[in-house]
Amino acid sequence: MARSGPSRREVIKGAVGVAAGAVAARLADAMPAGAQPPAAPPVVPIDPTRVTGGPTTAVGSRSPFVQPSRAPVGLTEGTSKTPLQLLSGTITPSDLHFERHHGGIPLIDPAQHRLLVHGRVAHPTEFTLDDLKAFPPVTRPHFIECAGNGREAFRKPRPDLTPQQVDGQLSNSEWTGLPLRDLLAEVGMDAAATWLLAEGGDAARLTRSVPVWKALDDALLVYAQNGEPLRPETGFPLRLLLPGWEGNINVKWLRRLELGTAPWMTRWETSKYTDPLPGDTARRFSFEQDVKSIITTPAHPEVLRPGPRIIAGFAWSGRGRITTVEVSTDRGATWRPAALVGAEHPKSVVRFTLPWRFDGRETILMSRATDETGMIQPTRTEWRATRGPGSDYHYHDIRAWKVAADGTVTFANGEVWA
Amino acid sequence: MARSGPSRREVIKGAVGVAAGAVAARLADAMPAGAQPPAAPPVVPIDPTRVTGGPTTAVGSRSPFVQPSRAPVGLTEGTSKTPLQLLSGTITPSDLHFERHHGGIPLIDPAQHRLLVHGRVAHPTEFTLDDLKAFPPVTRPHFIECAGNGREAFRKPRPDLTPQQVDGQLSNSEWTGLPLRDLLAEVGMDAAATWLLAEGGDAARLTRSVPVWKALDDALLVYAQNGEPLRPETGFPLRLLLPGWEGNINVKWLRRLELGTAPWMTRWETSKYTDPLPGDTARRFSFEQDVKSIITTPAHPEVLRPGPRIIAGFAWSGRGRITTVEVSTDRGATWRPAALVGAEHPKSVVRFTLPWRFDGRETILMSRATDETGMIQPTRTEWRATRGPGSDYHYHDIRAWKVAADGTVTFANGEVWA
Repeated sequence: MARSGPSRREVIKGAVGVAAGAVAARLADAMPAGAQPPAAPPVVPIDPTRVTGGPTTAVGSRSPFVQPSRAPVGLTEGTSKTPLQLLSGTITPSDLHFERHHGGIPLIDPAQHRLLVHGRVAHPTEFTLDDLKAFPPVTRPHFIECAGNGREAFRKPRPDLTPQQVDGQLSNSEWTGLPLRDLLAEVGMDAAATWLLAEGGDAARLTRSVPVWKALDDALLVYAQNGEPLRPETGFPLRLLLPGWEGNINVKWLRRLELGTAPWMTRWETSKYTDPLPGDTARRFSFEQDVKSIITTPAHPEVLRPGPRIIAGFAWSGRGRITTVEVSTDRGATWRPAALVGAEHPKSVVRFTLPWRFDGRETILMSRATDETGMIQPTRTEWRATRGPGSDYHYHDIRAWKVAADGTVTFANGEVWA
Repeated sequence: MARSGPSRREVIKGAVGVAAGAVAARLADAMPAGAQPPAAPPVVPIDPTRVTGGPTTAVGSRSPFVQPSRAPVGLTEGTSKTPLQLLSGTITPSDLHFERHHGGIPLIDPAQHRLLVHGRVAHPTEFTLDDLKAFPPVTRPHFIECAGNGREAFRKPRPDLTPQQVDGQLSNSEWTGLPLRDLLAEVGMDAAATWLLAEGGDAARLTRSVPVWKALDDALLVYAQNGEPLRPETGFPLRLLLPGWEGNINVKWLRRLELGTAPWMTRWETSKYTDPLPGDTARRFSFEQDVKSIITTPAHPEVLRPGPRIIAGFAWSGRGRITTVEVSTDRGATWRPAALVGAEHPKSVVRFTLPWRFDGRETILMSRATDETGMIQPTRTEWRATRGPGSDYHYHDIRAWKVAADGTVTFANGEVWA
């Protein structure tokens, strides 16, 4: 802070010298790699109080100085990632929710959409959206995370990875819908039913088996997200939400639920989403996302100036509430508890923050979260010892960032756990 | 619900008959008046599972079947309204936050923006955004409501008003920023300071006087909203947030805070935003927004079919938490408590819901909220008796909707309080 610094008049005078080219260069610096550059650099008035501003609009747009993108390295088929390093608070803006689909995003007319519930039920029923909205609604914040989130960073922990590239298949929303148990009561589920099959209405017709105990616990059928209808890429007009469970089982574009007495062993739970373990065994149905955290600032590609700043990031657990997030600013030698926002909500992203001063000396920053079941984030070595070399999902080992003496920040998991 | 209703095959077969024209007509029905029609009606596949869906995108878009608009009756200069009837949960999507400005929306380069803090302080200081982000951040949900919200409905309670037209100058966001008290401690505020002046960086240079006690209580300087930077129309890159206080004093595009010992009596608190009372007196500095609620569904222009449905809406108070929302389905003769979501947060919008069955008989629906200070929404008659005929702000009397025997719903305040 410039105590007794330049007067406002001097600042205004200074701004005269800012050419459009310099603005464009600064914009490009601030943009994540792969983001589309603006069509033209914004023409900023020397003094915005001297010119009439823009009009009201039917639907708003971001400032031209804010250009987020879900495509850190160009768009790939079926996957995009939330730019975690650009977020504040706990909510992921709906248009930046990560995407994962296997047959493209279907275009569905909500007035035509139906949910069929059948199998081991007394009253097989087809529900319209209006039918579902006549059940008492609930609203709760929950994260959704891809089972494979972190894989790229685990396999190839390159120094130039950003938080988005490391863990961007994670998003958090305020969801609105109905408890699945209310729907199952309505159709008269058989007492013998122990599993249900959920089927999506996309070209992949993704199907997953869900134990009935989860359906009767905290499962929801959701039709709204952050105050508005679901977005097409998050399941419009209807998705299954199994709080804390791996992303793919939260079936999007939900069109069918079948009640039965055994899992269906679909290809989405045999060829995919099963973890090989040491000793020729495997974890089947590894539903819960494990406790995890990541510092999102400072992080690559930030360059720090010496002085006070905030270390901040996200923590979450599929098993319940986050109780503690500890931050180390000395390569794991000592740990301090961070302040938490949103920790009252189970299976929802928590924002953690800790004031810190960068003194111009190289160091390594880390975070580790603990949840209410006592689970704590492992080191990579501990994780590998338990899960073995074949594991292909649920990478939740401690993430580390190296701050060099010149202030450059790089992803340090390759160095720390080498 | 169609028990043992049409099979999926029949439904799919039925969908074949839906012509593009019918889809367009249905879209037009669902759109609020004044919304732009889509460029072309969406071409919906007969069965979305038979065609490859759309690709991932850098930034998402709404379904073509979801076309919200802040312009219920066309855009007017400086004002737009949140389409409350389209919302679920508690969050207002950032691009649907209501707008109110007096000189247009300025385009501000965040790297050039400064906040000057001066007057009765030991260290006059100019802060950059990075300086402000180095303070420990807080994240909290709060509503913002225009002091004049409800005026149109109070003066001319026409039956064809929608929730958006009645009370759409209300929005609710998760805000992130720093406590103003931390900033005032940093600059060494004089013990003698009792008021501060907040100045906006727009062409209107809107200025308001704020008592220091509020600055030291729960006031924030915010730079993020619903996880992302503020939108241009909500103050990008920096706004003052005085939780629960009338919209205009939450100065947007904040560029200056001056500490002093008396209010400045700016034109925004003399010619505007002062309430004449009976007996040639006036309420000056009527900061707090009073306790209020509105049913957003059912509401005009919905047409109900007999059967079960949910009554839902929003409640809020500038004085603290909402403790109760009661709903009457018999023109105010009896009242039942509604279920609440978000009631743990003070000065934030609460979602209320109550299951109801429309039996095909005419009735009138109302809601009334009570806050933790014991304030309860008055009838229009009670409000008028207290505030007199000259009052021009803070219309928080009970809102009513008439459901006709044929299911049409109209705004009923004109009839109920005639």
